Amino acid sequence: MIKILVDCFGGDKSPQAPVEGALRALKANKDLYILLLGDEALLQKELQGKAYDKSRLEIVHAPEVIGCDEKPTDVVRLKRNSSMMKGIIMLRDCDDISALVSTGSTGALVTGALVRLGRIPGVIRPAFCPILPTMNGGIVGICDSGANVEVTSAHLRQFAIMASLYMENVYGVKSPRVALLNVGKEAEKGDDIRREAYGLLQETEGLNFVGNMESRDLLSGSYDIVVADGFSGNVLVKTTEGTALELLKKLKKEIFSRALYKLGALLMKKMFADMKEFMNYQNYGGSVLLGTSKVVVKGHGSSNATAVEKCIEQAYKMEVSRLSGKIEAEIAKYEHYED
Amino acid sequence: MIKILVDCFGGDKSPQAPVEGALRALKANKDLYILLLGDEALLQKELQGKAYDKSRLEIVHAPEVIGCDEKPTDVVRLKRNSSMMKGIIMLRDCDDISALVSTGSTGALVTGALVRLGRIPGVIRPAFCPILPTMNGGIVGICDSGANVEVTSAHLRQFAIMASLYMENVYGVKSPRVALLNVGKEAEKGDDIRREAYGLLQETEGLNFVGNMESRDLLSGSYDIVVADGFSGNVLVKTTEGTALELLKKLKKEIFSRALYKLGALLMKKMFADMKEFMNYQNYGGSVLLGTSKVVVKGHGSSNATAVEKCIEQAYKMEVSRLSGKIEAEIAKYEHYED
Repeated sequence: MIKILVDCFGGDKSPQAPVEGALRALKANKDLYILLLGDEALLQKELQGKAYDKSRLEIVHAPEVIGCDEKPTDVVRLKRNSSMMKGIIMLRDCDDISALVSTGSTGALVTGALVRLGRIPGVIRPAFCPILPTMNGGIVGICDSGANVEVTSAHLRQFAIMASLYMENVYGVKSPRVALLNVGKEAEKGDDIRREAYGLLQETEGLNFVGNMESRDLLSGSYDIVVADGFSGNVLVKTTEGTALELLKKLKKEIFSRALYKLGALLMKKMFADMKEFMNYQNYGGSVLLGTSKVVVKGHGSSNATAVEKCIEQAYKMEVSRLSGKIEAEIAKYEHYED
Repeated sequence: MIKILVDCFGGDKSPQAPVEGALRALKANKDLYILLLGDEALLQKELQGKAYDKSRLEIVHAPEVIGCDEKPTDVVRLKRNSSMMKGIIMLRDCDDISALVSTGSTGALVTGALVRLGRIPGVIRPAFCPILPTMNGGIVGICDSGANVEVTSAHLRQFAIMASLYMENVYGVKSPRVALLNVGKEAEKGDDIRREAYGLLQETEGLNFVGNMESRDLLSGSYDIVVADGFSGNVLVKTTEGTALELLKKLKKEIFSRALYKLGALLMKKMFADMKEFMNYQNYGGSVLLGTSKVVVKGHGSSNATAVEKCIEQAYKMEVSRLSGKIEAEIAKYEHYED
């Protein structure tokens, strides 16, 4: 039985979306056991009248609420009975629990996971790895996308190793093509960190390093993993999401500006719906935190039930494929220079 | 008379686009004088049969060609008779020449400008400031977008001052709203450089600093200037362009996949053309280099005549508004900590 904690508070659609997502995941995976974290009375109410396998679902009472403006360090120190922090502590203390899924505050989740869970032996810095859809129907992972605003070349190599194993084990991508985010394709582009990382990535056996990537090529389908510092990785992911959303909004506005366009759009209704669905990040799960001693998956704050279900699936596959052990073994092959 | 040098080689559509762009700019501005740089025979041929005011156009023979793979430092040192390098040297040596417009190699242009032209007194680092269209019909400038992959907080403040004056003087934006690119809105987000820059920007009088910007909001129309290090600024600009292009490509592919969609798209033909035009960077001119002692404008390598004309207009307006002097005066008000 694989036991996964689901934080049912903190997201915009809590507790409805996490509960519904958890029930769907339970139905799809017969060896999955879920612990719902949150206010017990509210969770009982949410579960009322719903059909599910009661022998594989449990509620863990965690009534404290985390405010929007609370500092991550305060949350970790003071809010031990919040659904998120209780989840992290249980994950740390219970050997039979494998993972935590949360749609709450990113800052609190990262800080809590780093302080309370610790890292896989050898890993210098855990890193986020969200997934985006590419234009040819594939996916691309970006690691790091915000956990570390400052990095060294040694960090970047570890991000590449972890993300590569993640793509292979969770998404079945054979020998993932790894690129380094840079301001140009040539090996000598960027700052010292990038030039050093280029060398390290090249000499890392078992890594399919294909060189530097310019950010305009992210969605081209030519790469499976893009390695970046958390600052520019964050810019890469959020700019892509932002541009796609703004363009769709603009398209919609234009369509509604004229009767003729509305008629045209009516004929293309299914196509627009498909495009929207294709670009909907809810379908691509959450951003996994790679490198912590146990599995943590961060869903978008606005996650619906489908998105939460995908996050649980990601956590489940990470555990089933024994990703942490593989990361530890691979990382151990390389010298690391710090921490 | 305002004299501007136009590099007619180096772009994908050379010399046709630069020559045609120059003739259009000449027609539009009666006090403009243009010097076309390049192989004289080829330029003469390109001008044949075209009507223009011969008293305001001159050809400067510069026959050397810069190869694609040449290192910028080699170009600056060895290719003094290339159209770009001859342009930079003439710009430096001739008091009556105001600006250079080029669609050639970015690396060679930046290196050449920094080495040969020098900076406006007080400016620590010149920076690129391209312009993108926002979804409400406005524009936003991003500074820096690639000239400096590493920066300090003092650099970021100067980028803000220079870009703010540029938006005001060239685009008529009153009291431009300046934001700092960061991984979150809160003042304490990002690394030390960002936190320091936040403080410096806040205390800079005459600057309308509105706080941190997350990259997903770039096109929202809420900001006139975004200040960034050259690495993440480059990622911001290229990701926006790349995502928009990939989405349009995908849309086109989907439309052609079914007769019904093709019919719908036919009704919306004008709308799609308008959208494409709206997103066409050719309409927004080039990326100006702010902070060099004389005006340099870098057009996209694939610039057509319209784009080159816009670049010349930008250079013309920078000169007419005496932007360099204003930058010098404003920069002089603040202490700077380094060179």
